[in-house]
Amino acid sequence: MFRPQIRVLDCTVRDGGLMNEWQFDDDFVRAVYNACVEAGVDYMEVGYRTSEKYFSRKENGPWKFCFEEDVRRIVGDNNTPLKLSVMADIGRVDYEDFLPASESVFDMVRVACYVHQMDKAVATAEHCLDKGYEVTINLMAVSKVMERDLDEALDDVAKSRVPTLYIVDSFGAMYCEQVEALAKKYHAALPGRTIGFHGHNNRQLAFANTIEAIIHNCNMLDGSLLGVGRGAGNCPLECLMSFLKNPKFRVRPLVKAIQDKLIPLSKQIAWGYHIPYLIGGVMNEHPRSAMAWMESDRRDDILAFYDSVVTDDTLA
Amino acid sequence: MFRPQIRVLDCTVRDGGLMNEWQFDDDFVRAVYNACVEAGVDYMEVGYRTSEKYFSRKENGPWKFCFEEDVRRIVGDNNTPLKLSVMADIGRVDYEDFLPASESVFDMVRVACYVHQMDKAVATAEHCLDKGYEVTINLMAVSKVMERDLDEALDDVAKSRVPTLYIVDSFGAMYCEQVEALAKKYHAALPGRTIGFHGHNNRQLAFANTIEAIIHNCNMLDGSLLGVGRGAGNCPLECLMSFLKNPKFRVRPLVKAIQDKLIPLSKQIAWGYHIPYLIGGVMNEHPRSAMAWMESDRRDDILAFYDSVVTDDTLA
Repeated sequence: MFRPQIRVLDCTVRDGGLMNEWQFDDDFVRAVYNACVEAGVDYMEVGYRTSEKYFSRKENGPWKFCFEEDVRRIVGDNNTPLKLSVMADIGRVDYEDFLPASESVFDMVRVACYVHQMDKAVATAEHCLDKGYEVTINLMAVSKVMERDLDEALDDVAKSRVPTLYIVDSFGAMYCEQVEALAKKYHAALPGRTIGFHGHNNRQLAFANTIEAIIHNCNMLDGSLLGVGRGAGNCPLECLMSFLKNPKFRVRPLVKAIQDKLIPLSKQIAWGYHIPYLIGGVMNEHPRSAMAWMESDRRDDILAFYDSVVTDDTLA
Repeated sequence: MFRPQIRVLDCTVRDGGLMNEWQFDDDFVRAVYNACVEAGVDYMEVGYRTSEKYFSRKENGPWKFCFEEDVRRIVGDNNTPLKLSVMADIGRVDYEDFLPASESVFDMVRVACYVHQMDKAVATAEHCLDKGYEVTINLMAVSKVMERDLDEALDDVAKSRVPTLYIVDSFGAMYCEQVEALAKKYHAALPGRTIGFHGHNNRQLAFANTIEAIIHNCNMLDGSLLGVGRGAGNCPLECLMSFLKNPKFRVRPLVKAIQDKLIPLSKQIAWGYHIPYLIGGVMNEHPRSAMAWMESDRRDDILAFYDSVVTDDTLA
């Protein structure tokens, strides 16, 4: 599948950090960065942007904040074709947390919001545009949004200067026909804008849904090494990059980083396909209860988790 | 996705046995059987049918042979709605290995063949039809078959009395658009017949490809508990059953069997998504070299495996 407009974003550290409070050491982040540069990845999302006003640095590693000096310790001035992205959660970030882009190591800000926060997300995104950043809005948990509210949110984006909107399957609940329907809806509401896709792997469909998004003209695609990310994780970047035929992409550097860093990490953190995450995805639920179960000593008692979640005959 | 014609086949023991020479103890097979009965699965494939003329019982467990007495030890006369299936590989089975269906514990024979064996497969399938069995032909490794040869094979099936033909993605090489194209081709060549789908999970697409097959009117669908099967394994039965909306299906018995039997097994055998299997799938290769690598002590040296397989710039 070759289409020159396609851009790939690595979210290994940002989404993976949801599993370890962003306690990746510099070597890990450097290995991911080097792999992205060598593989021809378009963007690497280093983490979240927030401040100590909202979160403690004792409990959260540096990639929860992405202070410029921490990132520059890894990438210097990032004199590479790889662009760096940072995610900003509405309600957990302030305008003054962003330097002018010309003074920042970052190229792009992705503004994450729930549907009721879309007005604030547009304002934050336009603030970052005015500071010189590339900008996206990532509308999370769309599998729980009523059509009337989604239409209004799309209208808000249409009226804005925001160039890119993401379809985000936060709960790993969707399958291909739902991705197709949303891609068509987003494109119809936002002619000429870029639509992105960010999946989760609860039902082992993150990569497949990303392919479906590609087929339906989504051009910003997220993946993470070995699929590391919250709960069941994301679309594995190595699956996505080995599928895309763009000659600028190389897979070998990803395999090296997986061997050096992700396989060891996988022995410490249980992301990926596990039955509690599947059940959460099927039930279209936030992964928090499945993650708590997986971190408890009842982790292997998946039948008890099933019985705690499936209280009607939905899954019988 | 509800369509009353859909039939689900569990191949946990048959395909999983490719990873342990069918050395499942009776308790394991009984747990899978009970789960299938309680979950409303349509068919359980207990194993292969072959004889000691072809394979040693020293090296292979009972489910490589599926002698009637071994199976009856688990299921008695199988007085349940679950039908039992056995797979016959062309070249490794003889006509006299099949009792008349009225005397057998089995309801269905699935004849597996490569494209050059289609004539023999049709003859074997019709022999089994005449003995009273339900019959399918599973044309393996279709991702390596030239279109001219596939057309001839489809024509052979069209001229036969064989009611069901499977699309088999033996190497886990395919993605949705290829499944769609094959489903349309098989249906066009075989109007009115049943088309089945059996996927492998090298690229994390086995379940997604099964959904694609459903969308394109394939009605016989294979899955295995926790996806156990050769190499990267199969479509996870629990994903498939929790996707299908047919009220006759129940998921909880599958979760119980996974907890009791599959999770313990997963600590002994490394099926599922691993980078060597991904590389094999992308390269459209038989999984034997990736399996040998995974069983060796170089298992975690995935970069060396990559370099041993990718000798040109295909994956760069």
